[in-house]
Amino acid sequence: MSAPAATLSVRIGEVERTLPTIRTGNLGRVPLVEFIGDPEFTNAAAQAMLALIPEGTEILLTVVTNALPLTHELSDRSGLPYVCARKKRRTYMRGPMIQDVPSLSLGVAETLWLDGPHAARLAGKRVAIVQDVIVSGGTAQALAKFVVQAGGTVSGYLAAFSRGESAVRVSALHALPVSV
Amino acid sequence: MSAPAATLSVRIGEVERTLPTIRTGNLGRVPLVEFIGDPEFTNAAAQAMLALIPEGTEILLTVVTNALPLTHELSDRSGLPYVCARKKRRTYMRGPMIQDVPSLSLGVAETLWLDGPHAARLAGKRVAIVQDVIVSGGTAQALAKFVVQAGGTVSGYLAAFSRGESAVRVSALHALPVSV
Repeated sequence: MSAPAATLSVRIGEVERTLPTIRTGNLGRVPLVEFIGDPEFTNAAAQAMLALIPEGTEILLTVVTNALPLTHELSDRSGLPYVCARKKRRTYMRGPMIQDVPSLSLGVAETLWLDGPHAARLAGKRVAIVQDVIVSGGTAQALAKFVVQAGGTVSGYLAAFSRGESAVRVSALHALPVSV
Repeated sequence: MSAPAATLSVRIGEVERTLPTIRTGNLGRVPLVEFIGDPEFTNAAAQAMLALIPEGTEILLTVVTNALPLTHELSDRSGLPYVCARKKRRTYMRGPMIQDVPSLSLGVAETLWLDGPHAARLAGKRVAIVQDVIVSGGTAQALAKFVVQAGGTVSGYLAAFSRGESAVRVSALHALPVSV
């Protein structure tokens, strides 16, 4: 019989959640944040993140999947449009941009794809990068490269949660422990 | 020089969109519906789909990715919770359920994954299957199998758009042409 897994309680606004923890490679257990399937938690985070959007931001950029309902809701509440990068090439993409996210552990890069017509929406715009959880900042940096490649400028990085030291300066609602 | 691609205009509530069309295997061009990155269109569809939710429905079930912001919004507006299946196994899943979606064209099955704790939320519940676009109904049938496996019952199938003849009886806002 294994010991019960550790959990971690977090509160955003009026919403409290007990996050399960999952075992990762060398890091011990880390808390699992799920916005998918939890509109109440998603909406509380989006509402609180409104205050983190840098002044002058004109559009949001995120990446699938867990940050998608969060960014939809943040877009809706802020009135700022959003664009979403994918983690797979879709057959319908027209002139997609590509950025690799170096992996810390495996040395295998993950590839992000941004469809051409969506990239075009970033041109000349001040773009805030939005994520659910920022850890190393590698994904945030890849998203920032999309912005530059598309002819926009990065206004800042925001996330519901940060965990550990990120390579970018991020505004987050809560700092999660590196391991539990 | 290639001819300009055909487009298709659709209207949901007050929101009108000109959908691009994409070439598929043997079917000619089909319209591309994108809710990701378009909160105005997403919200209009969710609002209109409220009327399609079968009476007695207690929870919604969908699958990533394009239907995710739509179902988040439908959940929010209906007050019904939702659960979302994935198209890849995630390392954090605990006792996931698996269903294959047979492909019409390639003979290669796509696999859907439903994390155990999310499947448990369907037990004993009347579940409506929600999709962005229902075509053959194969994905809808795989989602219905999750419901039965989890101990729930399917209250019905709803989608923003249908295209062609589906294997399930679907309530949709609009029927798209099979090809453009």
